[in-house]
Amino acid sequence: MKKLEEYVRSIPNFPEEGIIFRDVTSVLQDADGLHLAIDSMQELVKDLEYDVIAGPESRGFIFGMPMAYNNRKPFVLIRKQGKLPCETVSKEYALEYGTATIEMHKDSILPGQKVLIVDDLLATGGTTQAMIQLIESLGGIVVGIVVMIELKGLKGRDRIKDYRLEAAIQYEGN
Amino acid sequence: MKKLEEYVRSIPNFPEEGIIFRDVTSVLQDADGLHLAIDSMQELVKDLEYDVIAGPESRGFIFGMPMAYNNRKPFVLIRKQGKLPCETVSKEYALEYGTATIEMHKDSILPGQKVLIVDDLLATGGTTQAMIQLIESLGGIVVGIVVMIELKGLKGRDRIKDYRLEAAIQYEGN
Repeated sequence: MKKLEEYVRSIPNFPEEGIIFRDVTSVLQDADGLHLAIDSMQELVKDLEYDVIAGPESRGFIFGMPMAYNNRKPFVLIRKQGKLPCETVSKEYALEYGTATIEMHKDSILPGQKVLIVDDLLATGGTTQAMIQLIESLGGIVVGIVVMIELKGLKGRDRIKDYRLEAAIQYEGN
Repeated sequence: MKKLEEYVRSIPNFPEEGIIFRDVTSVLQDADGLHLAIDSMQELVKDLEYDVIAGPESRGFIFGMPMAYNNRKPFVLIRKQGKLPCETVSKEYALEYGTATIEMHKDSILPGQKVLIVDDLLATGGTTQAMIQLIESLGGIVVGIVVMIELKGLKGRDRIKDYRLEAAIQYEGN
């Protein structure tokens, strides 16, 4: 059987010189790859108890929704600024150049609910850290983060070291 | 059992006076609502034969991915301009104010493949029409479109009348 890594297309020098871009679309474009990705991520957190899955726009939706469906959990959207119609909480965080802001509906997490964060990729961990802060500001308890790909060279794991982090694939570099 | 419609939060006068915004986040935030949404959409197209599911950023990902997983099909991303790392085809289309451009990877659909488009909402049909044109430009055959919500008052259905369109919920207005 083909391994999950083998479905990932690696694109050298994209978006800039020296970066190897890990493309998840090649995984999803294959029915077996897609199944294996979701199943692998689920397997990594099968011992975890959680009430809600949360995922960020837009690639967190891709991996979070099938897991929510399969495990009969609610799915909460973490979106870019201005996309959610009801009352929101928001968190601004630093990017390499400039800042970004993410938002959640105020009523999307109830105090005390256990939340599993699902995303495609852990890079520097900036977005993940902001998501954790946002969920905790609503009284949610982040019980784990599961991603398809971790880029170990960017040390995102160090930034969220108080939280359980699982990755289906780890790459040494960035 | 609660009906799918009952999970949809309707927000009057958003984003502008006279519009009733149909919020899908309230459906997803409930484990039963989420299940019912996906199951209802699958049921509507269960007789269809297709090779690939395609969905647009970002809410098409939400509904398309669980359907792809459940039916063991590939999922192809239709994204906003500049988000896909490999060679793309793109389509510009008119919005109420200005234009938008969507893209797909050139190798994401093979000529002759049957494609089911999945999205959250059919409004004016502009995005749907652009998606159909993009898929057909790659040689794909659009065999159907399934959405969670159709806003009948905006007459999107008329714009894509040569295609089979299924909606889990229809609202008379806009």
